[in-house]
Formats: sequence, structure tokens, C-alpha cells
Amino acid sequence: TINPDRLWDSLMELKQIGAYHDEGTGLQGVRRLALTDADAEARRRCVQWMLDAGLEFRVDRIGNVTATRAGTDRSLPCVLMGSHIDTVATGGAFDGTLGVLGGIEVMRALNDAGIETLRDVEVGFFTEEEGVRFGTDMLGSAVTAGRIPLQHAWQLTDIDGLTVKSELERIGFDGPTPERRPAPHAYIECHIEQGPILADADVPVGIVEGVQSISWQRLTLHGEAAHAGTTPIGSRHDAGLVAASVVVELRRMCDSGDYGQLRATVGTFDIGAGQTNVIPHRAMLTIDLRNPVDDLMTRAEKDLATYVDTLAHQHGVSAEWERMAKTAVIPFDSRVQDLLADTAERLGLGYVRAMSGAGHDAQEIAAICPTAMVFVRGEYGGISHTPREYSTPQACADGTRVLGNAVLTLANQ
Amino acid sequence: TINPDRLWDSLMELKQIGAYHDEGTGLQGVRRLALTDADAEARRRCVQWMLDAGLEFRVDRIGNVTATRAGTDRSLPCVLMGSHIDTVATGGAFDGTLGVLGGIEVMRALNDAGIETLRDVEVGFFTEEEGVRFGTDMLGSAVTAGRIPLQHAWQLTDIDGLTVKSELERIGFDGPTPERRPAPHAYIECHIEQGPILADADVPVGIVEGVQSISWQRLTLHGEAAHAGTTPIGSRHDAGLVAASVVVELRRMCDSGDYGQLRATVGTFDIGAGQTNVIPHRAMLTIDLRNPVDDLMTRAEKDLATYVDTLAHQHGVSAEWERMAKTAVIPFDSRVQDLLADTAERLGLGYVRAMSGAGHDAQEIAAICPTAMVFVRGEYGGISHTPREYSTPQACADGTRVLGNAVLTLANQ
Ligand SMILES: NC(=O)NCCC(=O)O
Ligand SMILES: NC(=O)NCCC(=O)O
Repeated sequence: TINPDRLWDSLMELKQIGAYHDEGTGLQGVRRLALTDADAEARRRCVQWMLDAGLEFRVDRIGNVTATRAGTDRSLPCVLMGSHIDTVATGGAFDGTLGVLGGIEVMRALNDAGIETLRDVEVGFFTEEEGVRFGTDMLGSAVTAGRIPLQHAWQLTDIDGLTVKSELERIGFDGPTPERRPAPHAYIECHIEQGPILADADVPVGIVEGVQSISWQRLTLHGEAAHAGTTPIGSRHDAGLVAASVVVELRRMCDSGDYGQLRATVGTFDIGAGQTNVIPHRAMLTIDLRNPVDDLMTRAEKDLATYVDTLAHQHGVSAEWERMAKTAVIPFDSRVQDLLADTAERLGLGYVRAMSGAGHDAQEIAAICPTAMVFVRGEYGGISHTPREYSTPQACADGTRVLGNAVLTLANQ
Repeated sequence: TINPDRLWDSLMELKQIGAYHDEGTGLQGVRRLALTDADAEARRRCVQWMLDAGLEFRVDRIGNVTATRAGTDRSLPCVLMGSHIDTVATGGAFDGTLGVLGGIEVMRALNDAGIETLRDVEVGFFTEEEGVRFGTDMLGSAVTAGRIPLQHAWQLTDIDGLTVKSELERIGFDGPTPERRPAPHAYIECHIEQGPILADADVPVGIVEGVQSISWQRLTLHGEAAHAGTTPIGSRHDAGLVAASVVVELRRMCDSGDYGQLRATVGTFDIGAGQTNVIPHRAMLTIDLRNPVDDLMTRAEKDLATYVDTLAHQHGVSAEWERMAKTAVIPFDSRVQDLLADTAERLGLGYVRAMSGAGHDAQEIAAICPTAMVFVRGEYGGISHTPREYSTPQACADGTRVLGNAVLTLANQ
């Protein structure tokens, strides 16, 4: 039995690290981008909580932190809980953080109850899950799972040209532990849903069936600068116009139904020099596509590429694509899902099964061991990546109880 | 008779001040934004040339510089030549600069030939013609003409919050002379065409009939940040999508023919936080509209406002408009035009009459005295606001000869 107040207090305490005043919403938000000073401070706070709970902790070479509560048979693979504590620049207090502080709360509850487990139980947090700073999401867990090579991850750069490696060193989280680890017995991640499904179904928790496909690309368009007043419309090579047309086309594709439940977002859009009376010679945008069906994702990417080719050619603009990240649809382990469902039922909590709209560290760890996730309901339609993101203390406790009880079952198998 | 080599040498010398390497074109461009260090250095160079030509110079309170060659009757209003030496961030060596250095060359030629004039002849350059740094074009000449109050101009800010006034002080061009001046007898500005009309007509010079209407507005859209993966398409308040739709709609309006020869340009486009997996909560763009017919400009502005209203409402996004600059169609003085045409004929130079696509200081000075302009042909379709901007030494000399000979006629009236 976990302590809801203790969990809530730690959530609210971590919310202060990287706090900022958000003008748009008038609320206090969290801006704790991976490997910044704020992230470093939050990491140290979590490590302190891990130590307070009597856990042994270690830091691996990509900066992931895990802490262990010893089982009676230490030769057996552990049961792992975890998530991330980095946030986007317009973030809230729950995304990722809940799974980490929930995991630590589970450890405290095991201690309080004096429970011994057969297997080691571990809780961890992974580096740069958001991908907002270094351009690739689920970075730390993808390195752990072996999908992204450590050397590649190390040399990724942020907007100022700082590398993951140098920033790990700077904040003192360039650990000695190998990032590839012996496969755990199972991994469970508790996370806010960040969407409307649980609220629509009016249930406190969700059992996650898997994660939809995610595609991130950067598109740079090269046109030609020219005078806004004198250059006839027909002789322009307007990189900004082509970029804007892509944004509008993406929305059309989503609305068309031709790509199933495609979701497309252009979250960054930059025009070179940026001058009122100069036709833009350069434009850069990122394209975030999501699709619960791999084939439909492939079709969307292909059709988008054709659209850009045709339009760019028409405007005498050249297009340059850069792949930032791509993951296929990842199904979670059905037995771990069933265990989570049974646990929720046992606790008297209503639930639905659902695919995840967001990417999660669990989708990476799923490659090395049986994995599933429990979702926690968010208020306001589950809105996230904004300071309005909010889950009630009750909902946070409910999700953490499902997590803890399922982990306990697994740890004694 | 002006000296083409001496003119060309000074153009090439000033081109070095604010020179930068342009990646897109591989050429050396000029980046000499108003009241920057580069602008200050170019100002000092021009003042030195004015002194070398034996002129008296003065600086007014908005930083405009004028230099006088005394006539025999100093009680008569002067004949004024001028233009600007600030450039856009992706500029070339001719825009504005030609009219100033051409004017100085006319002074030198008058000296060489020992010519006395009845009236004073003046040459000057105006502050922030481009409007790229402080957001309002033709700033110095508009203050001189009384359209924009000095106090308003002084407090305009650049992207870093620096004011016109503090930057004038910093570079030492906060002069003591009143910015409003006794009306000159006439004003002539020589300027590159920055468009294709002269090249298409295969003539070296143009007589400018007037300047089309210019409208600059800044549009800021406020939506709501939310997660790219989890937020259903229908529940988004995507400020970036609305902004991009405006860019595409503007092009449609230009192509439709419903607004005559409307030209629309979105030269700056900025998305708040700029994160791949976050729906943009804010977007800002500038809208540059041009139209040779005032009524059609009014209609375009009105229809655009309606479009934005409707679309923003549809997306649950709010729109905020800011007027940056607006000038109506400005016709030039027909007698000064005829004088320029006669002069071109006398010099054996082919010409056409044309409206200007670009805004010019002449359109402001036209409010206080008879004014017209002579255009000089540009290569590569007259492309401008790019390092590719180029006029031949011959073309520069031809335009300056028309300027000088017409000024001589006016100065003896
Ligand atoms: N949970 C979460 O916000 N993950 C970030 C990766 C994504 O963009 O889906
Ligand atoms: N000539 C010129 O480039 N003027 C700048 C003002 C405008 O945008 O037309």
C-alpha cells in the first residue's frame, strides 16, 4: 500500500526544479530539458530519494540512472520500473516524473511493509526521453536497448552545438556502468496518458497495448532571396511558401482519412534571415508523424515526399530531408498487460486497454524484455506538454498502486 | 560629365563595409542594417567623401545626413539628391548606395568642371530606409517629411529591444539639426530598379511615375501547446497551422487576379518554443502587401482580415494584428518626370516610364517638394535584396548622368 500524500509531495517538490512562469496559460510550468542544470538538479534530488529508500544506484554511460532493492535470489533477472524526468520547454509536473517518483514510492512502500521479494526490484530514469533538446526521443532507453549506438547518441548536438557527451560530463552524469544491461525479467512503466481516452471512458487507469509508429524528419528548403515589392509572383523561389504549404498539406492528409488515424505536427518552423520585405531564401521545419498502423505511416511518408518534390520543383526550390527519429508500431507483451489488468481489477479500478499516442521508454525496453505500461488519467482532456497538464493525487496514486502490485507479483515469480 | 570609374570605385569600396559571405549564393553580400557598427562605418566613409568634395555636412535628429554645395543665391530653396546606405541582411552593393554615391559623384563632377549653380545643391542619406531592423521602412525620410513624428521614430525597437534613439547616440549620429527642413526646390533619387521592367524593355534607365501602396503588418496567433502524439487532430489549437494557412492563402489571393497586381510576402515566420513534438502555442508572421491601386489594397487587407478571423475562430486560436507601416500609392511630380525623360533623351539613353515596386525615400520627400526618380537597370532580371543584385558600371554611370544633368537644370531655375 503506497502513500498517496508522500507520492504527491515528491511530485510537487520536483515540479519546483525547472519551474517557469508560462505567459500563455498564466500557470507555473516546468522547463527541464535533458542534461541542463535543471535536469541535473532533479537528477540529484531523485538519487537522494533513492538513497533515502536504501537503494543502491548506478549511472550508465548515457546517463541513465537505476537503483536496486535487493531480492533474496540476486542471480535472477530483476523487475524494472522507470520512466524519465526530463521535460519539454512547455512542460508540466507529471509527464515521465510520475513513473519515476511512483517507482520510488513503490520501493518505500515495500520497505514500510517489510516485504522481501525473490528478485531484485529496480527503478530508473532514462536520459532525453523528450528528444526536444538533442532531436531524438527515447534516447537513453534506445541506447540501453541497443537500437541506437552509444557513440551515435554521444555526438548528437543541441541548438548551440553542445554534444550529449560533453553535457553528460558537465553535469557529472557520465557514469561508468555499461549502458547495455542483462535483460530484466520484465519492465513496467507508469505514465500519464497525455490524451483523452481515459477521460472519455471515465476510468482512472489504462492498460497500454503498445505505442504507435513515430516518424520525425527535418525538412530544409532552399529558395532565393529577392525583393518583396519588385519581384513578380511568378518569378519567386519562396522557401517559406513551400514550407507553409507543407504544413497545410499535412493537415489535409490527416483530415482526408486516407492515412487512417494519422496525426501530423509541425512544431518548429524557421525562416532564415527573417526580414519583412525579403522573400525567404531558406526555411526549416520539423515534421512529426504518428500512425497506429505501420503501412499507413509508410504511405503517408511516401505521399508527403512526392508532394514536397512536386511543389519544390514547381517553385524552383530545393528540398533537403534529414531523418531525426523513426520507430515502428511497438506492441507490448500480452502477459504483462493481462497481469496489469488483473491487478487493476483486484484493486477495484476501472480500466480500458488502449494504444499510446505518445512515445515512451517502454517501447525501447520492450525489445529486451516483456514490457507493458499503465496509464494514468489526465484532467482537461488529458492535455500534456503544457503547464495545464494535470492528474489528480488520486489518479497518480491509483496508477502507482497498479504498478506496485503488478511489480510485486512479477518479483516473486 | 561624371567619372564612371570613380563612381564604381566608391561603390566597390562601400561594398566592403558590412561584407559577409552568403552561403546560399556563394557570393559576397552586404549586411549593413541601420544604425549598426557597419552602418556607422559606412556613414563615416560617406561623410569623408562629402568633405573631400568640399561640401558642408550636417546630421539631423533622426540621423539623416545631408551635405551642401553652395549656390550663388543661398536664399533660394536647394535641389536635393539622396537615398540610403543601410541594407537588408541579405543585401547587395547597389540598393540605395547608388543614389548616395551617385549624388556625391555629381558633386565631384560639378567641382571638376568648375560649374557654379544658382541654387544650393545637396546630397543626403536617410536613416533606416529598409525597415528591416526597426520594423518601419523609409523611417528617416518619413520623419523629415513629417509623416512620422520624431518621438515615435526614436522609440521604435529592434529585435533586442534597442531603440532608434539609443542606437543613434551609440554610433554618434544623433545630430543637432532639426529633422523637418525648409522644402527643397525639388528632389531626385537615383536607384536601381530592383525588378525586371527595364531588362524586359531592354533600356538602361527608367523614369519612375510613382510608388505602389505598401502595407506591413505583424500577425501574432495564440493557440495552445499540446502533445503531438496524443492530441486528436480535431482538438488542436495549432497557432502554427493557422499561420501557415495565411501564407498559402496570400499566394492564392495574388494568383486569383481579384486584387489586381497584388504582391504578398511573408518574410518572417516564428513559432514560439519550437519543439518537434509540441503543437505550437504561438506563431508570429509579418505580411508585406503591395498594390499599385489603393482600392485593391484596401480590399486585399479587408479580405485577409476576414480570412484570418474565420480560420482562427475555427481553430480556437486568437489573432492579434499590429500595423508596422502603411503608405498609399504615391504619384511623382510630372514636371520632374518630364525633365528626367528629356534629359535621358538628350543623353541618347533609351528609357521607359514605370511605377516602382519597391518603397523609396522619394515617396516621403514627394510630400514636401516636387519629386521624381530615375531607375537603373539591374542584371539577372533586376533581382535585389540578395547578393546577386548587380548593375553594370555602365548602367550605374548612365543613371547618375541623368541625375546630374537634371539636377543641374533644376539648380539654375
Ligand atoms: N511521453 C512523451 O511525452 N514522450 C515524448 C516522445 C513523444 O514525442 O511521443
Ligand atoms: N528600395 C528598397 O529596397 N526599399 C525598401 C522598402 C521596401 O520594402 O520597398
